[in-house]
Amino acid sequence: MLIVQKYGGSSVADADRIRQVAERVVNVYREGHQVVAVVSAMGDTTDELIHLVGEVTGSPPEREMDVILSTGEQVSIALLAMAIKDLGKPVISLTGAQAGIVTDKAHTKARILGVSKNRLQAELVQGNIVVVAGFQGIDEDNNITTLGRGGSDTTAVALAAALKADLCEIYTDVDGVYTTDPRVLPEARKLDAVSYDEMLELAHLGAVVLHPRSVELAMQYGIPLHVRSSFNHNPGTTVKEAGNMEKTLAVTGVAYDLNVARIGIFDVVDQPGIAYRLFKALANEKVNVDMIVQSAMRNGHNDISFTCTRDDLKKALQVVENILPELGGKGFTWDDKVAKVSIVGAGMASNPGVAAMMFEALAEEGINLEMISTSEIKVSCIIKAEEAKNAVKSLHDKFELALSR
Amino acid sequence: MLIVQKYGGSSVADADRIRQVAERVVNVYREGHQVVAVVSAMGDTTDELIHLVGEVTGSPPEREMDVILSTGEQVSIALLAMAIKDLGKPVISLTGAQAGIVTDKAHTKARILGVSKNRLQAELVQGNIVVVAGFQGIDEDNNITTLGRGGSDTTAVALAAALKADLCEIYTDVDGVYTTDPRVLPEARKLDAVSYDEMLELAHLGAVVLHPRSVELAMQYGIPLHVRSSFNHNPGTTVKEAGNMEKTLAVTGVAYDLNVARIGIFDVVDQPGIAYRLFKALANEKVNVDMIVQSAMRNGHNDISFTCTRDDLKKALQVVENILPELGGKGFTWDDKVAKVSIVGAGMASNPGVAAMMFEALAEEGINLEMISTSEIKVSCIIKAEEAKNAVKSLHDKFELALSR
Repeated sequence: MLIVQKYGGSSVADADRIRQVAERVVNVYREGHQVVAVVSAMGDTTDELIHLVGEVTGSPPEREMDVILSTGEQVSIALLAMAIKDLGKPVISLTGAQAGIVTDKAHTKARILGVSKNRLQAELVQGNIVVVAGFQGIDEDNNITTLGRGGSDTTAVALAAALKADLCEIYTDVDGVYTTDPRVLPEARKLDAVSYDEMLELAHLGAVVLHPRSVELAMQYGIPLHVRSSFNHNPGTTVKEAGNMEKTLAVTGVAYDLNVARIGIFDVVDQPGIAYRLFKALANEKVNVDMIVQSAMRNGHNDISFTCTRDDLKKALQVVENILPELGGKGFTWDDKVAKVSIVGAGMASNPGVAAMMFEALAEEGINLEMISTSEIKVSCIIKAEEAKNAVKSLHDKFELALSR
Repeated sequence: MLIVQKYGGSSVADADRIRQVAERVVNVYREGHQVVAVVSAMGDTTDELIHLVGEVTGSPPEREMDVILSTGEQVSIALLAMAIKDLGKPVISLTGAQAGIVTDKAHTKARILGVSKNRLQAELVQGNIVVVAGFQGIDEDNNITTLGRGGSDTTAVALAAALKADLCEIYTDVDGVYTTDPRVLPEARKLDAVSYDEMLELAHLGAVVLHPRSVELAMQYGIPLHVRSSFNHNPGTTVKEAGNMEKTLAVTGVAYDLNVARIGIFDVVDQPGIAYRLFKALANEKVNVDMIVQSAMRNGHNDISFTCTRDDLKKALQVVENILPELGGKGFTWDDKVAKVSIVGAGMASNPGVAAMMFEALAEEGINLEMISTSEIKVSCIIKAEEAKNAVKSLHDKFELALSR
């Protein structure tokens, strides 16, 4: 088999952990498999580099951020390759550029366009274990790019897809995917399997075990993912096609996200193209917009609300301020002290009343809903940030997620 | 003018120093010049990375050492580019690979084969200040290589040669080239100018301000070097063709090197090809041999002695042990507690008796000579390491180097 493994920052936090990862990799290789190991930067490396940048400038150009941040994974791949070599197995490390990971030019949040796999395949054919730097790539002009935090998951899945891997294992510091964050709610339960769709919603909604883009990519190419801990040998959570699984639950999990800010624009002109112009302008500034809610028309005017990450709030507010006259808007408000709580479940579509149950649970706790957005398999609400924990607990209880099924 | 500047590790040791270097670079750019700034890793970064490697393995593969060590300069170039951008000037950072620095495959001590200068020239034409990672390159198979310590000097001179720069400034933490190491001998005097030949000998002999290969390259392409301090604006030392200078002194400087080990092989067969086989075997293992002395024939047998760096001693001893039967040698000795002291001067060849004066000075101090080697413009002696400082002082006095001329 060809197995792609991904080890996160906590899995390679120090020399001991790196040697343990090396043993895990070598054990798989000894069983006769080909192995590609994708690694993140060690523990706090990225934060340390960002701190160093902060000492030099308050407004670093994003291209140069990518040059410095990409060194974190480059250190990890060399150290892991050394540890594997110490165990007597042939190994080579490759940076994102060397591994042929080609991205667009959106520095600090680039998207993978493709994988030039010649080098990777040549190394595998020679019998080498290949250690690849996650999180990074190169654009068509040979500039270093990074995929944004969590991008190592995407690297792993992209490599698994390009190499037609049999399995993609995502090693992290938790045992798998839970019904909600076990740090918030101790009775949270580990799921044996979730569908791509559910995982995608959970990932987008702040369940930090997998990066949403990696789930998208896995779904697109049908790569089964196995999310598990690098600290023990427990079975983790399999992410695969819903069709392969038993009857899906109405609600699989509860997610929350505190990195959310809300912007509302009131009284924009009710004309075709208004939303396009606003969100095109936001996209041009690389603001990742999440929820979008447009209220019913009143007197030929609309209110438009949307959410983005708190990091992007400053940029988003500038865009809104500049474009406001063009939209004919009367003004705007914003709030960075909000949270998003969501329920997710592939069976939701065929279970009417699930959304109502969610609203009921939140109402019982006296929690006010600032925005609501629904999809086929999830319902999300924007609430006050300070009420997030309470909301998660009430929803987990309401849908009886602690009970094993 | 097109000016290549090189800033060493102490010049970019922290955020403050990096901002100061940025101002220096920008000042030159404001005067209307094109600037390429080559930078080393910050202060102790390389040592810290080596320490990290030591925690993972005692025998790191050299290819992977290059992958990890090259991150040091990558951090520096990003930070310097950010600081320059902060001063409002257009700038781009390039890794060794991106700057087109192509080397051979001798990991950890690679040699530059050429510079693919398309990217560099394109950035300069666009009006960018270009910040390039020193010390590193890429081989023809896209593997990261490093040039060994001090390699950033070589990077700067190679870029100056490829771009036909008007000047190459080497910024360091001392004011220029001295008659001997001022830390050892306070009365050492700064030289206004030295010839390439003299600088080459001084560099080879342990004067650490310039890497020998960078001087070779500058001589080969006729690039004038200006060695000066990044901590002040004092004029430094110019390194150029001897022909341009005033009458050269018999002895220009005294150098010493403590990173020396001596190996002696006794009673090898007196046949053609013996030396070839020995030094070919050492070269195959990338042992850099420095001095070689072969004694007069006695009864059809020879003694061969040579020196290498202390780092290479272990490898060198293995080679000698393996090849000893083939050479018909009776045995070998070694000593890693030796030093090399040397006198250098382009006028030496036309001043007979200079070597004798050197031996006299050392004899007066009761210093025993273990090996002697001479060239047109230098005489080197291997002595006990503990006597090195005393030897430097006595030679500096003997040749009256403290006197200004």
